[in-house]
Amino acid sequence: MDIKRKEELFEQAKQWILEAGSHIRDHIDAPRSIQTKSNPNDLVTEMDQKTEQFFADKIRSSYPDHLLLGEEGFGDSLEDLKGTVWIVDPIDGTMNFVHQKRNFAISIGIYEDGVGEIGFIYNVMEDVLYSVKRGQGVFKNEKQLPNLNDSRPLKESILTLNTTWLIPENPHVEHESIQELVKTIRSTRSYGSAALEFAFVAEGIVDGYLTMSLMPWDYAAGAIMVEEVGGTVTRADKGELDLLNSTTVLACRSNIYDEIIDDYVQLKTKESDR
Amino acid sequence: MDIKRKEELFEQAKQWILEAGSHIRDHIDAPRSIQTKSNPNDLVTEMDQKTEQFFADKIRSSYPDHLLLGEEGFGDSLEDLKGTVWIVDPIDGTMNFVHQKRNFAISIGIYEDGVGEIGFIYNVMEDVLYSVKRGQGVFKNEKQLPNLNDSRPLKESILTLNTTWLIPENPHVEHESIQELVKTIRSTRSYGSAALEFAFVAEGIVDGYLTMSLMPWDYAAGAIMVEEVGGTVTRADKGELDLLNSTTVLACRSNIYDEIIDDYVQLKTKESDR
Repeated sequence: MDIKRKEELFEQAKQWILEAGSHIRDHIDAPRSIQTKSNPNDLVTEMDQKTEQFFADKIRSSYPDHLLLGEEGFGDSLEDLKGTVWIVDPIDGTMNFVHQKRNFAISIGIYEDGVGEIGFIYNVMEDVLYSVKRGQGVFKNEKQLPNLNDSRPLKESILTLNTTWLIPENPHVEHESIQELVKTIRSTRSYGSAALEFAFVAEGIVDGYLTMSLMPWDYAAGAIMVEEVGGTVTRADKGELDLLNSTTVLACRSNIYDEIIDDYVQLKTKESDR
Repeated sequence: MDIKRKEELFEQAKQWILEAGSHIRDHIDAPRSIQTKSNPNDLVTEMDQKTEQFFADKIRSSYPDHLLLGEEGFGDSLEDLKGTVWIVDPIDGTMNFVHQKRNFAISIGIYEDGVGEIGFIYNVMEDVLYSVKRGQGVFKNEKQLPNLNDSRPLKESILTLNTTWLIPENPHVEHESIQELVKTIRSTRSYGSAALEFAFVAEGIVDGYLTMSLMPWDYAAGAIMVEEVGGTVTRADKGELDLLNSTTVLACRSNIYDEIIDDYVQLKTKESDR
């Protein structure tokens, strides 16, 4: 992407995100109607939809040739990632939003012909903005994050991981293999927002994030960030992320990547059969 | 405890905690020597020891008749909780301190003849102080927390829970029973600081905290807070916490307490045999 154009897009997207976040902060204590989507774990709020609508309107009026891939249904129906595509999660961590009124994020990744060029993860209530321009570093607010050059071994690592993957009934991974992983590493964490968990990997405060089911808007921004600081992000079978379908994801420090997948992640079904 | 004396003790302890926290914030980026205690998961830093020493010195010089129960070895050797006892965890969430430089807390509970009268949980890096005087409410900084009068059922609850308890080899609880619990509830979180997890229960941003192994300084303050807002805190076999030994703990909204223990917590050994 042309450098000048990238800079302009970055500044424009940043301004919209800060505006949307400010609006959420101003309205978070207002009464909300909460709908349940396919299951009770998947709450969606009016704020979620309104925020995606806000981005859809802004993008379409300023960049009519750009495309939008979003969670809430205001985006385009995409069959590939040709052109400039905004991948937007208006509120990542909806359950935290509802139960905690904090620990959620706006996540936006901007891709050109499938390559991640710009990414934002905005921890709305903390007013902390993680941002990246590919090749120009990751920033937490104004401060550049260092590269993940730590060489600590897997046994001294902390991973973010849902308890779901340690249960026999989960459809995606052999739970015994994940139990072995948990016994090997130093500890696990679980924060309830995939986007923030990617940001924490990029920041180096956790060493990796492993999940068996993630949608493109959950990781579109985070994947650019983790790769930019030298980490590795792929499917849990080492395949490339395709950004169009639900997928497994491992994002981590590069020196523990092979060991996690080779020794501990036994998938139940081939990724291509999902 | 006499009201005037309680007020004075509260103000004195609060001042010391804020001072200790400020000192930690000022020194968190200095190089540290890290020792490992009994296992690599149990890191202890110079800061941990220095902070406990700070409280030990202050308490002994101002209140020579008070006793101190602490994690780092600067306290008294107690066989009961007679008299006024300060139960201190200088840094709860040591692993977060080392890996994240945030998400840890100073925790202090002040007990008189075994009854919790005063408690503090100080999220040092966020500068957020949770405090309680028994019978006078729990505060997050200057704001009083409401009672936990929510009646949402267990299946809509979020619990904080370590992945450890879902693994067959854990020595304390039948892992299948905890797996069933995880399948029943809405979601789990894991933040890596027991003290903060108690504060989050008191604040109502998670619905309960369940663990199979906790030391008195991990929950001395938190137990007072959760009970003060109407929650229930006991051992996982419904026995009373004794504050002198390692123990199981469930702290939660009272309306989900019986169901969690009766239906989902199958202990491997009697608490009295530990």
